[in-house]
Amino acid sequence: MKILITSGGTTEKIDSVRGITNHATGSLGKYIAEIFLENGHEVTLVTTKGAVKPQKQPHLTTYIVSNVDSLVETLEPLVKTHDVFIHSMAVSDYTPVYMTDLDEVENAEHISDLLTQQNTESKISSKADYQVLFLKKTPKVISLVKTWNPDIMLIGFKLLVNVSKDELFAVARASLKKNKAHYIVANDLNEINGTQHHAYLLSESDVTEAETKAELAKLIFERVTNHD
Amino acid sequence: MKILITSGGTTEKIDSVRGITNHATGSLGKYIAEIFLENGHEVTLVTTKGAVKPQKQPHLTTYIVSNVDSLVETLEPLVKTHDVFIHSMAVSDYTPVYMTDLDEVENAEHISDLLTQQNTESKISSKADYQVLFLKKTPKVISLVKTWNPDIMLIGFKLLVNVSKDELFAVARASLKKNKAHYIVANDLNEINGTQHHAYLLSESDVTEAETKAELAKLIFERVTNHD
Repeated sequence: MKILITSGGTTEKIDSVRGITNHATGSLGKYIAEIFLENGHEVTLVTTKGAVKPQKQPHLTTYIVSNVDSLVETLEPLVKTHDVFIHSMAVSDYTPVYMTDLDEVENAEHISDLLTQQNTESKISSKADYQVLFLKKTPKVISLVKTWNPDIMLIGFKLLVNVSKDELFAVARASLKKNKAHYIVANDLNEINGTQHHAYLLSESDVTEAETKAELAKLIFERVTNHD
Repeated sequence: MKILITSGGTTEKIDSVRGITNHATGSLGKYIAEIFLENGHEVTLVTTKGAVKPQKQPHLTTYIVSNVDSLVETLEPLVKTHDVFIHSMAVSDYTPVYMTDLDEVENAEHISDLLTQQNTESKISSKADYQVLFLKKTPKVISLVKTWNPDIMLIGFKLLVNVSKDELFAVARASLKKNKAHYIVANDLNEINGTQHHAYLLSESDVTEAETKAELAKLIFERVTNHD
């Protein structure tokens, strides 16, 4: 099978020297890529510069992206030509629009006017004591996947922080339905620490559980390869 | 001599999954550390997780920091016990205070009231179409160095983007004076590309110039070791 995996975390530029980054080591995506490769599948990995990656090998193709725009552009043709999409990347949900000092915000007639402003400097000045950064939502990549390829098997991820199991499951089930995913990996950042990685793999009909990144990669591999 | 070098770029957390990062590979700091090590000096490198680093070796001690707070805490005792401080790290000049949606900003009686607010969620919700992030200035590490150790030889860095040579020199000379630095490395991001790295090394009395990271490291080494 042709398996498309994302890993790492995107960065949205504020200016030419600063950016907003989603922290992610890429190590779960590496485990997932490796187990599919070991079992003779073709893997395409879309990842970010700082992420850990599997060793170069014949059946692995790697693409490096930076921000959400480059991710969407890279993924669209790939989603159309793969059988399975495992979206473990931490994707920025907001991207910078405009950064200014407090005075301009205080003196704006309507705050929303500032949303149409743009910074002209390459590196925003660091003289003011405070800065205000306006951000807008990025497109939800996972919601585009089935519009690009209705037949692809989609495994999504939902990372929350310090929530109850009920809340985690509710959010994961909503994502399962909304994005027409086959599985959602639901996990809480408080339960992730190095190779320890407590996670639930939810489908419409069942829930399985893993305690480490290696176990979670194996679980995803088994579910994907046994599926119909 | 005991040489203290910083490299890489700091990240200031927005919440438990997002942060504002200063882009920096750490490669110039690596070159500088290596030339001092090859010539028998003791090097202490204070750097960040994602930065490239010299190979482990007997006369190299490495510290990993994340944000400006951890940088200041790590540097203070080190500055007091070293002869030379070469500060090539890209340090965040702003750190997040509070992130909220547009409604709260529009409805605030005084915008400045929001500067005393704090986010209580571990991961800030991503439901709103827009978010507003308030940031405050971080302490200028370079300005603290001589208060910690008046005798240390200080080499600072000034990175601007797309400015004239006159402006670059004016800003570098102001920094030289204000921070009581022996040298300021003045460079423009537009003139840095991989190992190519056009930079000026300014002191009160002279200016020298380098075209690559290796040349710049050598220039700094020569200036530091010939000094007095």
